[in-house]
This record gives sequence, structure tokens and C-alpha cells, in this order.
Amino acid sequence: MARLIEQFERLPGIGPRSAQRLALYLLRQPEEQSQAFAEALLAARQLVGQCQRCGHLSAESHCNICVNQERNIGIICVVADSRDLLAIERTREFKGNYHVLGGLISPMDGVGPETLLIQALIKRLDPEVVQEVILALTPSVEGDTTSLYLARLLRPFCKVTRIAYGLPMGSELEFADEITLARALEGRRTFE
Amino acid sequence: MARLIEQFERLPGIGPRSAQRLALYLLRQPEEQSQAFAEALLAARQLVGQCQRCGHLSAESHCNICVNQERNIGIICVVADSRDLLAIERTREFKGNYHVLGGLISPMDGVGPETLLIQALIKRLDPEVVQEVILALTPSVEGDTTSLYLARLLRPFCKVTRIAYGLPMGSELEFADEITLARALEGRRTFE
Repeated sequence: MARLIEQFERLPGIGPRSAQRLALYLLRQPEEQSQAFAEALLAARQLVGQCQRCGHLSAESHCNICVNQERNIGIICVVADSRDLLAIERTREFKGNYHVLGGLISPMDGVGPETLLIQALIKRLDPEVVQEVILALTPSVEGDTTSLYLARLLRPFCKVTRIAYGLPMGSELEFADEITLARALEGRRTFE
Repeated sequence: MARLIEQFERLPGIGPRSAQRLALYLLRQPEEQSQAFAEALLAARQLVGQCQRCGHLSAESHCNICVNQERNIGIICVVADSRDLLAIERTREFKGNYHVLGGLISPMDGVGPETLLIQALIKRLDPEVVQEVILALTPSVEGDTTSLYLARLLRPFCKVTRIAYGLPMGSELEFADEITLARALEGRRTFE
């Protein structure tokens, strides 16, 4: 019992109390459910790997976005990890392809460019196919460092853009922090 | 006593308990403090009016920003109210002038363009002086409506821009709402 609680506690966002509640719940359910849970866990771990092209989670050698013929292969959106990719997919606004770096450059944590999936990205940049790389990284020190590094590296191959930093929807100007407001001003756009 | 509590309760962000605490505090202080408070209130109300040029709060006929010779009169930043102006001033990034509309167009609340300080803004747009108007309105239905209205109206006079909408600083891509992410993608910029 203690071992099961400990395993749950290791998951992000689950504290000791939640872990206990989840473990107790599972023990009260029929045995088949624990069996199904354990099998799903092992199977997922065994079957889900990385897409060999973009680095996204995938059970096949290529993920369902990379094999989708209807997606525009001329635009590659670069994200830090698969969660960010899924967030962008939820907007239903982006019809291009992705590239998942597997993290952000962070010298403080010992993460250098060589540990990220950058060489594979450069190999994808056939100038006859790819017109634009969109850097969709978080607005933070690590995100900015990585964006700057990639922009310099990729510019010889194609146009490099980054997503807009500014006021989020529904926010109040007066409560925005100074850096966000300064960036929103600096990044202003002409009305079309 | 009840009347004083009631007056405090009317202020934004102050509930019945806070109102009671503030009223009790004042009653425990020497009488001079209540006197000073009341006088400050009446004096502020009497002396602080609107800047005749930009609509910002001001004790003089023109506010301290409008009379400041070091500010660039070629750029006017349009905000909904004085609180937003002060927020932008805190960034220390903007060196132009302002125009305070006094609200946003909101047909639901019966606020039409005619109730806002728009005619006075148009009068300020001497094409030989003003090169750019920046619309710094909140990203909301009312803000967007007002921005669109003003953009159409002001474009014959000068360049009209709006502040960037996108990811706020330090935010996580995966937790951004879909509309913010979609706008951040749509508003992407070329790396320079």
C-alpha cells in the first residue's frame, strides 16, 4: 500500500493526500481494473516512442501529424515539448508541421543545444520545401535564449518567425506586468 | 458610524468587513486625521479635473505629460482610462503622448462612440506633427470593437497601430487559452 501511494506521489501535481485517495480508490475497485491500469501503463511505455521526423510522441515511426497529407509541410512550428504541440493543436488554427525540441536551452540546468533535437530540425529544412519556421517557445529566459540561438542558426535556410508576446485575451491593461506591457508596446502592429 | 461604513463599502474592492475595520480605525485616531482626510477628499474632487488636451487626470488645464517638452508629440498612445495610462508609464518604455478615451465602446451597456473623447483626439491629429497613433486597449470584445472603430476613423490622418496580443511574460504555452495562442500564432513576427 505504501509503495503504491509513493508511486502516485511522484506524479506531477499529486500531493500525499491525493496519492492516498487515489490508491485507496483503486484498492476498493475490482481487481480487473488494477490489472487493466497496470497493463495500459506498461503497454504505453513500451509502444509510445518518438516520431523519427519531428520528435512528437508516437506509437509508429512517424506521428499522425507528419503522415497527414493535408498538413502544410512548408511551415514548421518549433515547440519545446509535446504538451505545447497539443496546446497549439487545440487552437485548430495551425495547419503546418511541428518539430519538438525536447526542452529549452538552460545553461543553469546544464542543458545545452546539443541535448536538444536541433540537428534533426536542420536536416528537415530543404529550401525548396520549407518556407517558414515559427518558433513557439515560452516567453522566459530559457525560451528567449533558445529562440535567439535557433533564429541565428536557421536564418540561412528559411524565414524564421516567433509567436507574439503581449497581452493575453481578456486581460486588463492596468494589471499587466511591466515587461509584458513593454513587449506589447514594442511588438505593436499596423492595423490592416 | 453606519453612514461612514456605508461610504467605505461603496469603494471598489472593499467589502463590509474591511469597511468596518477602516471606519473603526479612523474613529480611534485623533480628530485631526479625519479632518485632513475629509479635506484631502474635497480638495482632490475640486481641484483634479481633466487635461484639456488628452483627457488624463490633472489639477492644471494641461497634465504633466502634455506639458513635458521632452515627450515625443509625434506618437499618441490611446488608452481607455487614466489607470491604463499609469500602467504604461510604469514600463518607462513609452516616451510619446497619450489620449484617454474615458471608456470603451460597449453597445450592451449603452456606451456609444459619441460618449468617448474621440472628437478631441481627431482634432489633435495634425498630419505634420503626428505620425502614429498606438491603440492600447484591452483585448476584449469592447476593446476590439473600439480599436476597429478608431482604426477606420483615424487611418486617413496617420499610421494606426495596436499593441501586441499574445503570450504574457513567464507564461506557459501549454496553459495558455486557445484564443490567446491563436492570436499569438497569427501575430507572429519575423526575427530581426
